[in-house]
Amino acid sequence: MIQKWPVLSSKQLADFRIFTVRTDVKRSPRTGAEHDFFVLDTRSWVNVIAVTPDDKLVMVEQYRHGSDTIELEIPGGVMDAEDPSPVLGGQRELREETGYEGDRAEIIGQIFPNPAIMSNTCHTLLVRNCRLTHPVEFDSCEDIRTHLVPVAELPELVASGKIQHALVVVALYHYDLWRRKQASPH
Amino acid sequence: MIQKWPVLSSKQLADFRIFTVRTDVKRSPRTGAEHDFFVLDTRSWVNVIAVTPDDKLVMVEQYRHGSDTIELEIPGGVMDAEDPSPVLGGQRELREETGYEGDRAEIIGQIFPNPAIMSNTCHTLLVRNCRLTHPVEFDSCEDIRTHLVPVAELPELVASGKIQHALVVVALYHYDLWRRKQASPH
Repeated sequence: MIQKWPVLSSKQLADFRIFTVRTDVKRSPRTGAEHDFFVLDTRSWVNVIAVTPDDKLVMVEQYRHGSDTIELEIPGGVMDAEDPSPVLGGQRELREETGYEGDRAEIIGQIFPNPAIMSNTCHTLLVRNCRLTHPVEFDSCEDIRTHLVPVAELPELVASGKIQHALVVVALYHYDLWRRKQASPH
Repeated sequence: MIQKWPVLSSKQLADFRIFTVRTDVKRSPRTGAEHDFFVLDTRSWVNVIAVTPDDKLVMVEQYRHGSDTIELEIPGGVMDAEDPSPVLGGQRELREETGYEGDRAEIIGQIFPNPAIMSNTCHTLLVRNCRLTHPVEFDSCEDIRTHLVPVAELPELVASGKIQHALVVVALYHYDLWRRKQASPH
């Protein structure tokens, strides 16, 4: 049976504002040998599937500094320290980035963005009946353009490689599976 | 229209073996202001959808040091410097982690694991007709148990949250969409 590795010691090495890096020394339960591992710690994230009453997804187009590309994504981001829950954090991100608000918000999935080297989680939040109710509130590093995309077109956008952000693809699969379950609940 | 941000300067800050961290100073095309951003650089990754002749997926169960959890995943990993292509790198990972080999290997998807803070890409490789042909070759930090999972059970494993690694969920969506296209090509 696969076992967890016990941690012998842990030390933070660096703080890069949006994430910190630590090294953990652990012992292999199989060989008994000690190894050190680097782990990135960061707040948890939330991605938002925001659907309008006429079955369109509220998507955002934005420049991404890691990949140096412009990506078609969904609203979302890092949970604030003040966010009391992923549901409220996701609704805040949706409102700030797009000006949309909806109702019947529910978590439909939760994953590890990268359990090999990162400790955090990411929730997928579904918000229905979304309508434009607020002006957007970009922070100084955000340039975001909103697009309404028919829900029926989403699988082809993933299959054709037009949607490239892994965590957005994850959220769209959660939503695809959620919709299939609604269509045939038994 | 959303524009890329020009890079004014770039500097590597730290080397953590499996990834390095750099800071880029960029200028906002919207406001003209300068900002600095942290970016993680690492090799590209490949994840492998390995299917047996009787429609089972070759999965691996392993302990993950970032999340400190045991995860049900698919074979895959970091491309070696010597890997001439994602196809060959993925076949190598499949063989080393599970001892399986197949044929008709093809890339069915490519994404950015995290374009906000990481520069690398991850390919999804589909390998069919997989059979156990080799002993496994774990490196000293790998404890891996192979599971054969019927392909028809995969969507429920994602929907129920039993598969939690984001990049594995991405690969399974690529495969799900590929299968749907095979079933109704028009």
